[in-house]
Amino acid sequence: MIFRQEFLTIKTKKRGFYLITDDILHTVNLKDIKTGLMNLFLKHTSASLTINENVSYEVWEDLENISSSLVPDGDKYLHYLEGKDDMPAHFKSSMFGVSLNIPISYGKLQLGTWQGIFLCEHRSNPSFREIVITVTGESDIFLNNRDI
Amino acid sequence: MIFRQEFLTIKTKKRGFYLITDDILHTVNLKDIKTGLMNLFLKHTSASLTINENVSYEVWEDLENISSSLVPDGDKYLHYLEGKDDMPAHFKSSMFGVSLNIPISYGKLQLGTWQGIFLCEHRSNPSFREIVITVTGESDIFLNNRDI
Amino acid sequence: MIFRQEFLTIKTKKRGFYLITDDILHTVNLKDIKTGLMNLFLKHTSASLTINENVSYEVWEDLENISSSLVPDGDKYLHYLEGKDDMPAHFKSSMFGVSLNIPISYGKLQLGTWQGIFLCEHRSNPSFREIVITVTGESDIFLNNRDI
Repeated sequence: MIFRQEFLTIKTKKRGFYLITDDILHTVNLKDIKTGLMNLFLKHTSASLTINENVSYEVWEDLENISSSLVPDGDKYLHYLEGKDDMPAHFKSSMFGVSLNIPISYGKLQLGTWQGIFLCEHRSNPSFREIVITVTGESDIFLNNRDI
Repeated sequence: MIFRQEFLTIKTKKRGFYLITDDILHTVNLKDIKTGLMNLFLKHTSASLTINENVSYEVWEDLENISSSLVPDGDKYLHYLEGKDDMPAHFKSSMFGVSLNIPISYGKLQLGTWQGIFLCEHRSNPSFREIVITVTGESDIFLNNRDI
Repeated sequence: MIFRQEFLTIKTKKRGFYLITDDILHTVNLKDIKTGLMNLFLKHTSASLTINENVSYEVWEDLENISSSLVPDGDKYLHYLEGKDDMPAHFKSSMFGVSLNIPISYGKLQLGTWQGIFLCEHRSNPSFREIVITVTGESDIFLNNRDI
């Protein structure tokens, strides 16, 4: 039985959807896990994590545009002292969520062909965003030695 | 300690919310689990999984109508070559999410009286949608033998 | 290996976002867990769970106002016999979700500085809402004895 925890910080440049699948896979070792689950948890309230299309940057821009069109920046919110983009960022964080759970089979994430993992930065300014990666699973010695 | 993984494919006919609680329960054995969790993971970016009202089909139609009213079909998106329903489907997939986690107690899912598990098809055309079911838990020999 | 399950009922007064981090922490013991995960599962279809800003009540009111502005009360829905607030409540439940997963490290939740756990009541009337808390993790005898 494996319980593994790693930490990853992503630097964002501005509001937008950032593909981080490879960052995750470079941070945590899944090779020795036969069957398991990976939990990703983002420690922030104005950004989020999601899974979506991993190739087309047009999809990433549309995801951002649609969410900002549903919850536009503005000073009409009760909470706006930190900027017109602050409260919409809080809402989007709850709409998309800050926690993902992805199954693992024979050392690999069970992502579909077109699925990638995204950090969604909902604030306008650059930021550092921390992610906790927790992996639980059943180990397999054969898998562990496969790549050695 | 149990780590179990099963796979399920659901055929959808058209855009809409499909109650799949029984499909899940027919695919995976939970009887021998005293305390545990079931993860459902959908391997697609234009469909989603959710939990909602398990009796009224009017609720299911309203869920579809409201989501398509919030993010209407159209060709105003950057990504629209695959159809006017494609980009809205991607957005709804992130809004509802593709992963569910449901607790297990004494061989049964801890769903509320009115809760059912739904596959949400966000594309207009029929499709095959794959779900990975991962169960972790503490086994109980007595539970395992109960129905034999 | 720990598998622990507790149950918590929260009384809501009216529609709104209720900070329940302390209620959770008073209900379940995490002290002896070195590395683990906590799952929260809400057994209802017209309320939800989310993580957001834990200090400013203005954020909590804005979250409620924005969600009710996106999906307004009304009798235009197919499902409205239980009240104008019923169908919007079902939709918000799926939009925010009823399940949260939070990592545990050395006896504590890995929440960010500004993150709190919220029960989102989407119906207008008071209600009792049940939450299942399931904790999985690796135990550590030293941690367990720390506070004795």
